[in-house]
Amino acid sequence: MKQIALFPGSFDPFTRGHEDIVLRGLKIFDEIIVAIGFNSQKNKRYFEIDYMEQKINETFKDIPEVSVIVYSELTASLASKLNASAILRGLRNTTDFEYENSISQVNRDLNKELETIFLITSPELAAVNSSIIREVHRYGGNIDKYIPYTL
Amino acid sequence: MKQIALFPGSFDPFTRGHEDIVLRGLKIFDEIIVAIGFNSQKNKRYFEIDYMEQKINETFKDIPEVSVIVYSELTASLASKLNASAILRGLRNTTDFEYENSISQVNRDLNKELETIFLITSPELAAVNSSIIREVHRYGGNIDKYIPYTL
Amino acid sequence: MKQIALFPGSFDPFTRGHEDIVLRGLKIFDEIIVAIGFNSQKNKRYFEIDYMEQKINETFKDIPEVSVIVYSELTASLASKLNASAILRGLRNTTDFEYENSISQVNRDLNKELETIFLITSPELAAVNSSIIREVHRYGGNIDKYIPYTL
Amino acid sequence: MKQIALFPGSFDPFTRGHEDIVLRGLKIFDEIIVAIGFNSQKNKRYFEIDYMEQKINETFKDIPEVSVIVYSELTASLASKLNASAILRGLRNTTDFEYENSISQVNRDLNKELETIFLITSPELAAVNSSIIREVHRYGGNIDKYIPYTL
Amino acid sequence: MKQIALFPGSFDPFTRGHEDIVLRGLKIFDEIIVAIGFNSQKNKRYFEIDYMEQKINETFKDIPEVSVIVYSELTASLASKLNASAILRGLRNTTDFEYENSISQVNRDLNKELETIFLITSPELAAVNSSIIREVHRYGGNIDKYIPYTL
Amino acid sequence: MKQIALFPGSFDPFTRGHEDIVLRGLKIFDEIIVAIGFNSQKNKRYFEIDYMEQKINETFKDIPEVSVIVYSELTASLASKLNASAILRGLRNTTDFEYENSISQVNRDLNKELETIFLITSPELAAVNSSIIREVHRYGGNIDKYIPYTL
Repeated sequence: MKQIALFPGSFDPFTRGHEDIVLRGLKIFDEIIVAIGFNSQKNKRYFEIDYMEQKINETFKDIPEVSVIVYSELTASLASKLNASAILRGLRNTTDFEYENSISQVNRDLNKELETIFLITSPELAAVNSSIIREVHRYGGNIDKYIPYTL
Repeated sequence: MKQIALFPGSFDPFTRGHEDIVLRGLKIFDEIIVAIGFNSQKNKRYFEIDYMEQKINETFKDIPEVSVIVYSELTASLASKLNASAILRGLRNTTDFEYENSISQVNRDLNKELETIFLITSPELAAVNSSIIREVHRYGGNIDKYIPYTL
Repeated sequence: MKQIALFPGSFDPFTRGHEDIVLRGLKIFDEIIVAIGFNSQKNKRYFEIDYMEQKINETFKDIPEVSVIVYSELTASLASKLNASAILRGLRNTTDFEYENSISQVNRDLNKELETIFLITSPELAAVNSSIIREVHRYGGNIDKYIPYTL
Repeated sequence: MKQIALFPGSFDPFTRGHEDIVLRGLKIFDEIIVAIGFNSQKNKRYFEIDYMEQKINETFKDIPEVSVIVYSELTASLASKLNASAILRGLRNTTDFEYENSISQVNRDLNKELETIFLITSPELAAVNSSIIREVHRYGGNIDKYIPYTL
Repeated sequence: MKQIALFPGSFDPFTRGHEDIVLRGLKIFDEIIVAIGFNSQKNKRYFEIDYMEQKINETFKDIPEVSVIVYSELTASLASKLNASAILRGLRNTTDFEYENSISQVNRDLNKELETIFLITSPELAAVNSSIIREVHRYGGNIDKYIPYTL
Repeated sequence: MKQIALFPGSFDPFTRGHEDIVLRGLKIFDEIIVAIGFNSQKNKRYFEIDYMEQKINETFKDIPEVSVIVYSELTASLASKLNASAILRGLRNTTDFEYENSISQVNRDLNKELETIFLITSPELAAVNSSIIREVHRYGGNIDKYIPYTL
């Protein structure tokens, strides 16, 4: 049976750390769907969602096993629809852990068959997250080092 | 002397994890007052404060040792007025710990006699918090498993 | 009903941080029993257990609500025998939290009625633990600042 | 291609938490090899290694996809020999995370193709670890609740 | 060569914990520049930036090695302009650590020569942060204990 | 005044992570003394202390500002004798933080003038510590990647 993993996130922006998780996840999964969560209630994004979808597509244009979608529903429901057997997530540090612990527990409550599989982000990529990258970009700093595409 | 504990929080919503702390706290305290903090300056609540007060009352309707109030002042001052000898709080994980460390220190600075007493939330209830429950509810997911009353 | 708390530990040595927990615990409990765990299988103690029992007794000689015992059995069983309704423990930091989470869960599994109640050690006393005090003493450093009695 | 995962550990003893990781891992992997590390240099085991191997075999006797071995070499080398594409590990809390971060990094350094895949232990099983189970057993407490076989 | 350190922050308000870091930093650095970050995009401040600049100046009026500025650019660029060889930061707890890890990594990426030097905030000052001080002040509580100047 | 820093540790073995801290520390300090703690009471070392002293000397043979010594006394006393104004330490993760918090507090209690200055270990070097390197070496794995000298 083909193993499909969902890789959900806000990806504002998608980073080299995210790319690392997708590429390493392909050693385990046959297909990975990057799913950009759209949340009308939360704070406005810094990078437009359509622009980011295009940039992620560009990043994986030579890897047909990776696709990108935008969604606005419960991640557990989306996984069912797409026949994903697992959610794939990266862990960078202990703060991530506590948060992911909650989310993964709820996702299993909502969908008993759905496992969340974690990879630890490669150390040289783990220190920098999307929030700090936005901050650097806002003040005109160069963020090329942190993203796998050109803005 | 009757030992009264204050159990303060925003309870947006009140969860089975909160209920667990109250019920276990009754083994130590003679009376527990659930105190819903009302903060006009912070982000708007998801569940109305009056509605939640009613639901917590409903949850403990057969336990006269538990009462519910809404407050909008320093927790340490409220404790004095109500003759509470302790603040009762649940700890779920290490992130909670750092936050509670700060709050309890300030409460003792403001009121030397006021101790904060912690119970560790039962593990099967600890992973899920109010914030993630709101997120599930917002997208139409079923949250009955996480709350001790029916919406 | 009289509320009795058990305060178990190896107390090698008993520190001002431990004293802080006992004294603050007396605001909630009518009686506190300091219980020094004797473990023949573990590493040898640095301070003799009888000597430490005497020093803790000396520390609380004017507080009849505090007593000291040595024990060598499951803490949960000891609590039953002594009619203790709670185990009292101090939390100093996040490392403590993970450990205490395990222990308290097992104690409840072994004795459904037994709650573990936590106080956060006062910040100016929390940084220094028994292990580091032993290390200072071994090299001839002065540890008077960290213990509530004279060696 | 068949996906084989190695599940290494000292398993002293093998717990329901370990069983949880194996069973959930089977949703992702075709085969899981439980590998009990034998370390002549470390502290003596509490439960004999052969006895534990037998008990783990007993636990999974109806699940042919799970096998058990004893090993005494680098985990990364063992994985190569057994054609395992991944190491499977459970994460219980933030303390686990820091440790697993180190181990998984070294394993990738030793074997570029080897990923370590993490599942978060189910919360009701995560609080209790092998070390505390040994302690309970040493004092004659009942540990049936924590292990998936009878001693 | 004169060693200059930049001590950046939002200082809303500047606390005794911040003062502790500056005074102890002077044992290592010849000059320390307290730099109040002005961020038009973030949430409004509670204490006006000009007022806080004045209060910090007042705090160090007898220590010519300490100066205060307001800035609105990348901290790494500011450090270059001011010939600072290091950023000075206080660490209070593990939550701080993860955040500072990210920030310091980015600052080195932006400016290879720029080190971030950490001191651990003195324990008796570490529990209370700016956010909780604002909360106490908002409800009319006395915050004199937490700040090194009079409001 | 010349700023001297003491960099104490067991260095069993000295790693690239340690080297990283020394080299970056030289941007702040005029001289750094690597001090290998000799502890007759603790577990036996894996790498001989004289051999390691030689290897560290070899590592910094072209940097006269770095010297190496072996010591067996309180670190705070050693710092006084050597006129060191600071202890230099690397922080790799949150587990390190709690430990270093205790040690640095005791060192200041023993020697009021002695500050402990922290650098966060570069991320690509932070995941791997001395303990895991010993483990790899014990089983015949190659550890060249983790040490700045050849064994």
